[in-house]
Amino acid sequence: MSSPSAVRAAIVGGTGYTGAELVRLLSGHPQVAIAMITSESNAGQPFAQLYPQFSGITDLELAPQAALAEQEADVIFLALPHQVSMEFVAGHDLNKTPVIDLSADFRLNSAAVYEEWYGVAHSCPRLLPAAVYGLPELNREQIRTARLVANPGCYPTCAILSLAPLLKAGLIEPDGIVIDAKSGVTGAGHRPRASTHYPTVNEGFAAYGLKRHRHTPEIEQVLTSFSGADIRLQFTPHLLPVNRGILSTIYAAARPGVTESELVAALAAAYQEEPFVRLVSEPPSLDNVRGSNYCDIYATVDERTDRALLIAVLDNLVKGAAGQAVQNMNVMFGLDESLGLATAPLSP
Amino acid sequence: MSSPSAVRAAIVGGTGYTGAELVRLLSGHPQVAIAMITSESNAGQPFAQLYPQFSGITDLELAPQAALAEQEADVIFLALPHQVSMEFVAGHDLNKTPVIDLSADFRLNSAAVYEEWYGVAHSCPRLLPAAVYGLPELNREQIRTARLVANPGCYPTCAILSLAPLLKAGLIEPDGIVIDAKSGVTGAGHRPRASTHYPTVNEGFAAYGLKRHRHTPEIEQVLTSFSGADIRLQFTPHLLPVNRGILSTIYAAARPGVTESELVAALAAAYQEEPFVRLVSEPPSLDNVRGSNYCDIYATVDERTDRALLIAVLDNLVKGAAGQAVQNMNVMFGLDESLGLATAPLSP
Amino acid sequence: MSSPSAVRAAIVGGTGYTGAELVRLLSGHPQVAIAMITSESNAGQPFAQLYPQFSGITDLELAPQAALAEQEADVIFLALPHQVSMEFVAGHDLNKTPVIDLSADFRLNSAAVYEEWYGVAHSCPRLLPAAVYGLPELNREQIRTARLVANPGCYPTCAILSLAPLLKAGLIEPDGIVIDAKSGVTGAGHRPRASTHYPTVNEGFAAYGLKRHRHTPEIEQVLTSFSGADIRLQFTPHLLPVNRGILSTIYAAARPGVTESELVAALAAAYQEEPFVRLVSEPPSLDNVRGSNYCDIYATVDERTDRALLIAVLDNLVKGAAGQAVQNMNVMFGLDESLGLATAPLSP
Amino acid sequence: MSSPSAVRAAIVGGTGYTGAELVRLLSGHPQVAIAMITSESNAGQPFAQLYPQFSGITDLELAPQAALAEQEADVIFLALPHQVSMEFVAGHDLNKTPVIDLSADFRLNSAAVYEEWYGVAHSCPRLLPAAVYGLPELNREQIRTARLVANPGCYPTCAILSLAPLLKAGLIEPDGIVIDAKSGVTGAGHRPRASTHYPTVNEGFAAYGLKRHRHTPEIEQVLTSFSGADIRLQFTPHLLPVNRGILSTIYAAARPGVTESELVAALAAAYQEEPFVRLVSEPPSLDNVRGSNYCDIYATVDERTDRALLIAVLDNLVKGAAGQAVQNMNVMFGLDESLGLATAPLSP
Repeated sequence: MSSPSAVRAAIVGGTGYTGAELVRLLSGHPQVAIAMITSESNAGQPFAQLYPQFSGITDLELAPQAALAEQEADVIFLALPHQVSMEFVAGHDLNKTPVIDLSADFRLNSAAVYEEWYGVAHSCPRLLPAAVYGLPELNREQIRTARLVANPGCYPTCAILSLAPLLKAGLIEPDGIVIDAKSGVTGAGHRPRASTHYPTVNEGFAAYGLKRHRHTPEIEQVLTSFSGADIRLQFTPHLLPVNRGILSTIYAAARPGVTESELVAALAAAYQEEPFVRLVSEPPSLDNVRGSNYCDIYATVDERTDRALLIAVLDNLVKGAAGQAVQNMNVMFGLDESLGLATAPLSP
Repeated sequence: MSSPSAVRAAIVGGTGYTGAELVRLLSGHPQVAIAMITSESNAGQPFAQLYPQFSGITDLELAPQAALAEQEADVIFLALPHQVSMEFVAGHDLNKTPVIDLSADFRLNSAAVYEEWYGVAHSCPRLLPAAVYGLPELNREQIRTARLVANPGCYPTCAILSLAPLLKAGLIEPDGIVIDAKSGVTGAGHRPRASTHYPTVNEGFAAYGLKRHRHTPEIEQVLTSFSGADIRLQFTPHLLPVNRGILSTIYAAARPGVTESELVAALAAAYQEEPFVRLVSEPPSLDNVRGSNYCDIYATVDERTDRALLIAVLDNLVKGAAGQAVQNMNVMFGLDESLGLATAPLSP
Repeated sequence: MSSPSAVRAAIVGGTGYTGAELVRLLSGHPQVAIAMITSESNAGQPFAQLYPQFSGITDLELAPQAALAEQEADVIFLALPHQVSMEFVAGHDLNKTPVIDLSADFRLNSAAVYEEWYGVAHSCPRLLPAAVYGLPELNREQIRTARLVANPGCYPTCAILSLAPLLKAGLIEPDGIVIDAKSGVTGAGHRPRASTHYPTVNEGFAAYGLKRHRHTPEIEQVLTSFSGADIRLQFTPHLLPVNRGILSTIYAAARPGVTESELVAALAAAYQEEPFVRLVSEPPSLDNVRGSNYCDIYATVDERTDRALLIAVLDNLVKGAAGQAVQNMNVMFGLDESLGLATAPLSP
Repeated sequence: MSSPSAVRAAIVGGTGYTGAELVRLLSGHPQVAIAMITSESNAGQPFAQLYPQFSGITDLELAPQAALAEQEADVIFLALPHQVSMEFVAGHDLNKTPVIDLSADFRLNSAAVYEEWYGVAHSCPRLLPAAVYGLPELNREQIRTARLVANPGCYPTCAILSLAPLLKAGLIEPDGIVIDAKSGVTGAGHRPRASTHYPTVNEGFAAYGLKRHRHTPEIEQVLTSFSGADIRLQFTPHLLPVNRGILSTIYAAARPGVTESELVAALAAAYQEEPFVRLVSEPPSLDNVRGSNYCDIYATVDERTDRALLIAVLDNLVKGAAGQAVQNMNVMFGLDESLGLATAPLSP
């Protein structure tokens, strides 16, 4: 289905949910051919045996990672766990093939901050300055020429898209921001654990990673760069009994006299040309975005409390991971940014 | 996005789930332009206000049905309740615009059978002989030239695709077939009722329509025409706590000595060229097909009991309704049958 | 099963979820006999026909409300909608039979505040001073002799139990409190609506009642009475795709130097003798409390932000409604406060 | 809470779902004291740390199995995996303490059949004749004096209670029975696996164990003993996206002329004195029985097909496991059979 001049994409570590989502999106992308999907643990197995929804859609067999050396590819998507990802990049020639890394390994500017939050030393700090944070709405020009894109975290994408324009416009106070975030279970990955066992999650709901979730410094770093002020915020993630989706309820003190219209105007100015950020006039549900690359944002001011309230939703596997990676690839290869991403959300 | 020579489609009764699913599929179809969506109850309202996932995707406003008279359209999709549908068709000039009717009104050949199961007289029996049952895998040639396509029911599509080739090949007994079917809640429609109230359905599971579900005569009629024998079967639907999907577990006596390989061979022969029917080697889950136009079928023989077991899944809103309707439209307009329907399933 | 000296209870408006939950709890209470369940819309129907789980447990038929005049009862539980409840109370002789009102009608001290948030004038303001707010952990002595108990709202119970001891002890700032609350769907009642239609809720998640939820003034009123300060807080409820349970994530500025141990000590001092409030050392899930009268509270301080974080869970139909009503009844009748409420949570 | 003469119960292997459910039921049983809960993997840990819903309800610490030798107990509940269970029984003195085994190890009369279906040799065949199948409704007299009770499987309890009286009364044909069964996920146990990972199960539905589920010979053995005929049936289990509950849809040829009334009369005759089997007049949902020891059965005849249709529901952890075990204990100790089991279902 792909054109002769298609971008040849390799997916490294393709058996997790973000890998499978890359396959879903790239298999429908008119300018991409999936050249290889690697997996150390399942090498030799047809990908569609692991994910039967792809039966008849791709007949690729999972390749061992070593096979990548022999494979011609124009771009590599890394869907590896953190730590494993930076090892790969350390041994890879970025001049030969650019990399879009879906792990956290190149998102933080500072190796010290990485070590503080991830509990291990960064093994490839020399590349941190070269890595470009892959949020096209805020960083498009740098992405165009990047050789190493650090694809943002799911929670950070949702929080940063909501807050950055308001901080930049000085409409909200940089101090005291609270992000109460809720995510579907695919955000916790493909590997079964006690915490994602069906009877544990179903009919349940709980916070996790309290005070120490690793997306906290990522959000703070990017917002700090936008606001000028040093942002220190409260981020509390919760596990929702749904498959996909993040909803963040965000609280910030409105600067004196700031109105809902001003919030909306600042967001509209930032995103009016953006294909994947939609401002909505009612508090959004996860249903707004399931399976799509949209981030929907609602903003208001509570005049009883002079507080700005923001509610944003996205699909953690799409705009929060694989879709954003494809969007970054489109930017890097000079393609229409919506190619392969223009499908409507699936709801219900 | 659509080409200048696009098929102009009108969706009549577009505010239910099948209507919204038609919008989802047709808005991504490269050869279709949605010309109009009608709704009596919500006329004047932007469609995307009712279904916010379509914000930025379609800016059509719902039109009153009367506006259809002024609208140029190449095809009309009827997403109306049964009875309302036959009234529309009775007053419509099929020579002017062909109709794909997603209701049950033109599926049964016999007005008497219709009255027996639907409890009302058929108001347009003269058109029953002209209506073509829109199951392309079994009926493609007639669909090409049809002016009135009766789009099959969701349960019947699942059951008939599984059983027809086996009955035709004489591999199973026509007597004593049991179809134990389970459907997601979108099959019950968009209108809130006590039986589809969230706390009633969630964590629950029950059979409904026992002994009198209206899809029974539809399945029997089509299978009878395939088998030569007079099929009378047991059909028991259940309501599953999921949004989408039908899984049918089907039991039939295997003819003496028939093996699993023979079942699989008969199904393979019937469907090897078909883009939307996949034979699978493991019992399928609803996950195999969510959001897609596939019907996945698994077949085996239990040698302890000499019984053929078939398990088939499809998405009730896609292959069970709107997707099949689009497939029928593609056939009628000489388009590639997969156009607008080639997206991979969304899982998880 | 009940003793000869059993308390005779009448449930008025017994066909909603709180009514059915009262039947569940009272039918297992060793000192209570359910004398009557009324329903205007379903009078004459066996209660167990409406709620088949009670088949063989109660054979009571729903009575019209008028029949209550002839019925000897020691206590009346009102499980009516707000407005309807105050009409009932206005026409009832409290000296004859005490009332536990599960609606919101007598929770707010001020008829003006009631009108502001509920949008209708209070029709029985003369009884507001006599009504006792039925939160036994904070108000037990007044409940003992009350003739009209205003049973607290589900969200307020969760928020007040968490915050009151900390405000009283001066450990947190009264300004700037944020309550991000999430509730299961039974909180929205038994009547089907678009917003509680299964496919709308399932796999979805959204905020509702933003800035204007009626439990806001109730929480503020009670906390103001405890803190001395005038509490004005941010309360944001969300609808969770589960049947039962509320989880509130609460953010408050910690007073300078306050530690997690101090928070825990203050809560422990308040609740050490309480049978239904448990302090837990891990962030609780809804699973902790399902089907039970417990409220589980977790407290910590984030030293990066000097903010107190509280997470509290309860079952909205039990401690958030019917269970608390039974607890109030036990207090009023001098019974062991745990009678009929001592069952362990159901999990999973 | 328990009386001085309480039955002292030990739960061996108490950290799975059936173990936790035994704790839930026994902690509310007025004549039982839980003396010990053992776990090899979690010994030393408070039980309530593993299952926080029991915080404040039991402060027992998990004991290593070896500690059982020193523990005075009147009854031992084995909540161990199969194979492990028969090893325990082989080394245990049944004369000293009777055992209720919740595993499958002593349910089948024949060691050969056990080996055929479970794939391992039975290590304790000498005790098979002594073991009593613990279905009180059919086997009460033998249970009274048993020293080793084989607690029935969840699916078999549901199927046998439905079919036995009809086979005994000769109302249905013994040949050609189909049991299409659907179970909640707790039936698959507490240990996380790929097949019970939340995103795999949620919004999914699939059959499993096709043609080879181990409950098949258990159902056949018991029904054969009731019918006189040699029963060979079709049993197909499916995994439902709910926590608890089994619903079985059962198809059998009605003997000529048999009516629904005759089916109902035969079931009523069998169960009219039974506290835990309820005949219902509408097809039941899982909601009918959640958290309770009831099995609800619906029976009808489809006159179009001359087939008996039975639909039965129970809670797999209660009547399908722990509740039935407690019922057996009550029988063995001469207690009221409903003690500790009389709580109403939790719905919704």
